[in-house]
Amino acid sequence: MIELKAKLINIPVGKRLVLLHKEDAKKNGVLLHDRVKISYKKDITTAFVDITDTFLQPGEIGIFKELREELGIKEGNLISVTPAKIPESVNFIRKKMKGKPLMKNEIYDIICDIVEHNLSELEIAAFLMAEDFYGMSIDEVEYLTQAMVAAGTTIDFECRCYDKHSIGGIPGNKVSLLIVPIIAAAGLLIPKVSSRAITSPSGTADTMEVLAGVEFTASELKEMALKVGGAIVWGGKLGIAPADDLMIHVEYPLSLDPLGQMIASIMAKKLAVGADCIVIDIPVGAGAKVETEEDARKLAQNFVDLGDRVNVQVQCGITYGGQPVGHTVGPALEAREALLALNGKGPASLIEKSTALAGMLLEMGGVAPRDQGKEAAKELLFSGKALKKMREIIEAQGGNPNIKPEEIPIGQHHMEIRAPCDGFVTNVDNTAITAIARTAGAPIEKGAGVALRWKSGYKVKKNDVLLEIYAERESKLTEAYDVALKTRPVTIEGMLLYTVPKY
Amino acid sequence: MIELKAKLINIPVGKRLVLLHKEDAKKNGVLLHDRVKISYKKDITTAFVDITDTFLQPGEIGIFKELREELGIKEGNLISVTPAKIPESVNFIRKKMKGKPLMKNEIYDIICDIVEHNLSELEIAAFLMAEDFYGMSIDEVEYLTQAMVAAGTTIDFECRCYDKHSIGGIPGNKVSLLIVPIIAAAGLLIPKVSSRAITSPSGTADTMEVLAGVEFTASELKEMALKVGGAIVWGGKLGIAPADDLMIHVEYPLSLDPLGQMIASIMAKKLAVGADCIVIDIPVGAGAKVETEEDARKLAQNFVDLGDRVNVQVQCGITYGGQPVGHTVGPALEAREALLALNGKGPASLIEKSTALAGMLLEMGGVAPRDQGKEAAKELLFSGKALKKMREIIEAQGGNPNIKPEEIPIGQHHMEIRAPCDGFVTNVDNTAITAIARTAGAPIEKGAGVALRWKSGYKVKKNDVLLEIYAERESKLTEAYDVALKTRPVTIEGMLLYTVPKY
Repeated sequence: MIELKAKLINIPVGKRLVLLHKEDAKKNGVLLHDRVKISYKKDITTAFVDITDTFLQPGEIGIFKELREELGIKEGNLISVTPAKIPESVNFIRKKMKGKPLMKNEIYDIICDIVEHNLSELEIAAFLMAEDFYGMSIDEVEYLTQAMVAAGTTIDFECRCYDKHSIGGIPGNKVSLLIVPIIAAAGLLIPKVSSRAITSPSGTADTMEVLAGVEFTASELKEMALKVGGAIVWGGKLGIAPADDLMIHVEYPLSLDPLGQMIASIMAKKLAVGADCIVIDIPVGAGAKVETEEDARKLAQNFVDLGDRVNVQVQCGITYGGQPVGHTVGPALEAREALLALNGKGPASLIEKSTALAGMLLEMGGVAPRDQGKEAAKELLFSGKALKKMREIIEAQGGNPNIKPEEIPIGQHHMEIRAPCDGFVTNVDNTAITAIARTAGAPIEKGAGVALRWKSGYKVKKNDVLLEIYAERESKLTEAYDVALKTRPVTIEGMLLYTVPKY
Repeated sequence: MIELKAKLINIPVGKRLVLLHKEDAKKNGVLLHDRVKISYKKDITTAFVDITDTFLQPGEIGIFKELREELGIKEGNLISVTPAKIPESVNFIRKKMKGKPLMKNEIYDIICDIVEHNLSELEIAAFLMAEDFYGMSIDEVEYLTQAMVAAGTTIDFECRCYDKHSIGGIPGNKVSLLIVPIIAAAGLLIPKVSSRAITSPSGTADTMEVLAGVEFTASELKEMALKVGGAIVWGGKLGIAPADDLMIHVEYPLSLDPLGQMIASIMAKKLAVGADCIVIDIPVGAGAKVETEEDARKLAQNFVDLGDRVNVQVQCGITYGGQPVGHTVGPALEAREALLALNGKGPASLIEKSTALAGMLLEMGGVAPRDQGKEAAKELLFSGKALKKMREIIEAQGGNPNIKPEEIPIGQHHMEIRAPCDGFVTNVDNTAITAIARTAGAPIEKGAGVALRWKSGYKVKKNDVLLEIYAERESKLTEAYDVALKTRPVTIEGMLLYTVPKY
């Protein structure tokens, strides 16, 4: 045990971190990344160690923001420091790293320590990589799911709840903005918790935010959803399954997405809001998360099996994901298209997909006979009942219920990409469309995005506009246009896309 | 591109790091852990991104120490920031994460980017875990070795060089302090580059440092070694194979030690100092790095095969590693024992092991006939020639050449652990001995350590002293004693060890 004088470093570092002088660290056998026990007055906590030989004098300890706030440490306070044991959960991670399956209590320990910031990003990464490499048994996925639910907020709507989730990866997938009002219009409760985009041009929450607020607490969500029968909110403020957000910080830079973890994370968020019946949309196609139908079928079976174990009825819809859904990509453009579709004027692909998935929920809820869910969903859509319900949802979430599609502002800067020759559109590339829309500013700049005039199978003439790029800033538009020239967003009869005028 | 005002943060963080305000990051589509291109005046470099919403105002950029020094940025300077592409090497790491073998240029890229601090710790960890999970082919290990050599300093002694390396894991393994002077006394050049302990009670460099300086530059090493025919220095100041040190920072907290990486790291350090003939000591036993003879044989074959590919003659010695080598553990105690052995008075296990390994080198060097190397080594030891050479080496490295073993100061606080009953010593536990010695203060406090009175196979009587713990500080001694009571450092006829007086 040593006593060191606190030197406050008011920088947030996302974890409990202290800075030790090299000599103090050496003397106490403490190495970089080790943990130490920090005591100040009556409080004791564990912190990670960073080491310096310049910023501090020996005898000083640098206290970063999180720890200062937690313990109320002031400049010059004496802090006791002792080497700390590593948490038991690190040994469980090492066990998984050796390929051994984990027990229920071991998985609970890991998830609990992630949420309590007791594990470093390196340790979380090691856990996720081990999950990815060795896979997770259905037992492990079940424990993971339940552990993630237990380590966060849960909401009890006190009645039967319906929900839907898309695996993601397909730009333009604004189906939730149709499905939620259709289901709610049928009298089934659907409090849809959605995410913001991480690597896509717009998450459901980003798109909904164009029309109404999406950041609510758990009790606000409960009140709104019970009032109008549905909601579309962002999950980030609810505190449900918080381990997932912490793991995403590590998954993202490594492009890591272990299958078992993905399934558990999705199901945990659904269980946390008390869903009883869930439809899961698994798009299949090049550039989608799942590229073959065989993988999609396996994944679907995993969801169904897990649902059985956790007493939730799950149905998966394997959907066509070879190109964007509908014709628009980016928050404002997608919100426009969704409203148009609720007005009965949307593109066929969007309406087909939305009503098919909504139909599955209607059948599960017993409000449509078997095999007639899709027709029932279409009836709710084309009768205007879904639009009316959407207006109620928008109003409940603080938006303008009477907004017309054309009133939604989109990026004022735009450019067109035209067909270099006559021919058929043979491919619209998900990855390229995503890159163009994000470069244009989506999802942060709501008006940025891409509008497709034609999709696969259509015949186009030379000089026909193939797609338009929208941006809020001229510089972003230029950058996005460059990306469009370098990638191949739309293929015509196997020809590379050129621009008019040629460059 | 945005321009932000520099706010200097004088903390070393071990990498090029900038802090961005959440809003600036959002607007530019930059996420936590992303890279940005930083330009200031004519300099452009890549930095990693940390994100805050409290420490900075929007429009400011926090510049940590490393980047400030590299670019000479001053408070308030305008810095241009643009999102940066991830280095190509990250894609190669992802390739390995999918189980695909890497090509030569891919491995070179990864190692080069590690050394140039272009990869984050998460990315380095991902690479090491992928190496560990999927293994490395002999081709990959060869590329890795050569890439590590190429990415650092190399020393050319301009004559035939001999070297030895122990895989490690066995406390008390001070054999290099005997082998180096034996080989040098035979007229063969042996510039031994050694490491400090990371998790063991004393590395060869820690032990040698009791007798002489060990921190030298490459040109100092060359001069000293050529003068007296041998040297024992620490590798950390030489700049050879620097990738290894950076990887160890990540391996240590995860207890990760991928086989291919271990082999490549060892061989790279040997190649960097131009070794032509190398003996590798692979101790086998409980608590050693290699626990079975079968694993040891496979590992040995890997070293020999790699040697063939990189034009180095390698011989491996598989040695008994079931208990500590000799009777002492900890820098000063080990230095004493090594000097005693050079005086012909050391314990049999130490002399047997040292002369056997030295003999292999003598045979490789053609100064002893086949199968007579060990005898030749013993002759060099017992004739006092090795001791004379060791005095020259100590003097060349700035130590006192005439130091006597008993003049080496050891910890003034000590305690004994006695036998609770009559019986045979059936086990001396490497892991427990290591824990006791480190808790007592080794390797930082040179006088701390453990002296074993008896080892496996000896008959002891009740109340005989089994081991002594030495420490430089009373508090450390007490802690080490506690560890000795909780572990089972010495087993007598399968009985748990008790202390006298009983507690």
